[in-house]
Amino acid sequence: MKNISKRVNVKQVNQNINKVVYSKSESKQLATDIVIAEQPLQISLCWQDHGVDTTKVFAITMRTPGEDEQLILGLLFSEGIIKSIKDINNIYPEQSEDNTEQNLWEVKLCPEIIPDIASIERFQITYSSCGLCGTTSLKSLEFKNPPILNDEHDWLSIKHVYAFPEIMRQHQLLFEQTGGVHTAALFNEQGKLITIKEDIGRHNALDKLVGTILQIPSNNIAHQAIVISSRISFEMIQKAVMVGIPVLIAIGAPSDLAIKAAKRFNLTLIGFASLQSFNVYHGDWRLRQDER
Amino acid sequence: MKNISKRVNVKQVNQNINKVVYSKSESKQLATDIVIAEQPLQISLCWQDHGVDTTKVFAITMRTPGEDEQLILGLLFSEGIIKSIKDINNIYPEQSEDNTEQNLWEVKLCPEIIPDIASIERFQITYSSCGLCGTTSLKSLEFKNPPILNDEHDWLSIKHVYAFPEIMRQHQLLFEQTGGVHTAALFNEQGKLITIKEDIGRHNALDKLVGTILQIPSNNIAHQAIVISSRISFEMIQKAVMVGIPVLIAIGAPSDLAIKAAKRFNLTLIGFASLQSFNVYHGDWRLRQDER
Repeated sequence: MKNISKRVNVKQVNQNINKVVYSKSESKQLATDIVIAEQPLQISLCWQDHGVDTTKVFAITMRTPGEDEQLILGLLFSEGIIKSIKDINNIYPEQSEDNTEQNLWEVKLCPEIIPDIASIERFQITYSSCGLCGTTSLKSLEFKNPPILNDEHDWLSIKHVYAFPEIMRQHQLLFEQTGGVHTAALFNEQGKLITIKEDIGRHNALDKLVGTILQIPSNNIAHQAIVISSRISFEMIQKAVMVGIPVLIAIGAPSDLAIKAAKRFNLTLIGFASLQSFNVYHGDWRLRQDER
Repeated sequence: MKNISKRVNVKQVNQNINKVVYSKSESKQLATDIVIAEQPLQISLCWQDHGVDTTKVFAITMRTPGEDEQLILGLLFSEGIIKSIKDINNIYPEQSEDNTEQNLWEVKLCPEIIPDIASIERFQITYSSCGLCGTTSLKSLEFKNPPILNDEHDWLSIKHVYAFPEIMRQHQLLFEQTGGVHTAALFNEQGKLITIKEDIGRHNALDKLVGTILQIPSNNIAHQAIVISSRISFEMIQKAVMVGIPVLIAIGAPSDLAIKAAKRFNLTLIGFASLQSFNVYHGDWRLRQDER
């Protein structure tokens, strides 16, 4: 990817929001609050098809502004639209008149890259007409050719798994201020936090993390783990699998389809992670018990 | 609406899911878990346009099966596609071959009802090309002609607001089993729970509630409150406003755009609700302090 435009005036929180606080222990009072910012983001794809310039709106999502490039990269990659960031020539926000908001983004693909239109359509509206079920979702993910996850045994110490949620919590800056975001964080096998993303949407937070992983050169993803603050639905599994990270750990609960997908793509899936305990729904063999 | 098909074999939770439980206080052990079900749902709209039968996929969403009619009604109504359930002739799942899953639903509109195609398109992909910001979202909601909310003062006792979260928690049956769902509940001004919906997605839970409200004849919505377990983003405000309920209470935090929308459409918006305290971001005048 040749060029990432600088972002202008990104406001991730809104301060001085008035509120009336009711409390049983004190009398009603006026106060101010800090709340998380939410804005729509439109992603348009531009490419050349047999010499003809083509533009298509890929998606609109409500998100917290900031790290939009990473959000877009992560979403396009998770959905199989791009195979790497090298497929992208340029990614930039359209300039708004007052230059204060950057919610319309364009992604210019490299000349030789023609996105699978059917895949774009499928993202927006339509699945196979011959039926729709959990298996359809799994097959749809197979169709995107996710990498085979590294299945090395015993590389992640359980002492790190116990520690991850608390380390993540200490770095949730937007959550600390607003209480209104979800978080996705990347850890290495030494238990060290590599990077952390927050957004009003749990999908967005993970997309921003995936986009960032794609941008880190020579990233040793085979021995890394993603930790998320949310529940685990199918789409969260898809994002982890597509980017090739073999361990997904969540503070919340998994769905049945998420567990099925973890088994199918051999992802270590951990739910209800806390300082005291956690549940492994698949891929226990990647964990090492030698240290406590 | 003339006809609602019976649902077949709805599985909302999946039992006997194997897991490995790690705990600092006990040794590693095998156990079984109950997890929430997640399946894709495709909604197709069918209508007659100048005598020509037209079918269009409106949306695909991942949801917990069950109360799909209500989910579909709530989503179509919140998005302004139908003005009431009277606009719908029939709503039914396509029969799958093995008759076990009902994930493809069709909604047949009444002969005189032609949905706003632009609105469908906008839902899926495109906003105004002249810019996109929080104001665009507010204008888009204005365009759907939401009802003017009853602005009567002093009708909701704060003792009920303090009590709602705990009452809701006691009725979260799927959450109790799985820990993996969000909840939306409807309360009346006497503080009584009218109905409660749970789903793996917070939008879905509220859509199921909205769909159910539409189906209750002579429902006194002017003096009712919705309580949700999640955070409050713009779309949650849209759903409450469209169905005409004047009070939205959340366990979680609001976004800035949600607060803007609450102000614009005069919705009482309460966040961080608990047994001990809550924050009112707009519409404090609907609350009554006389009882503690």
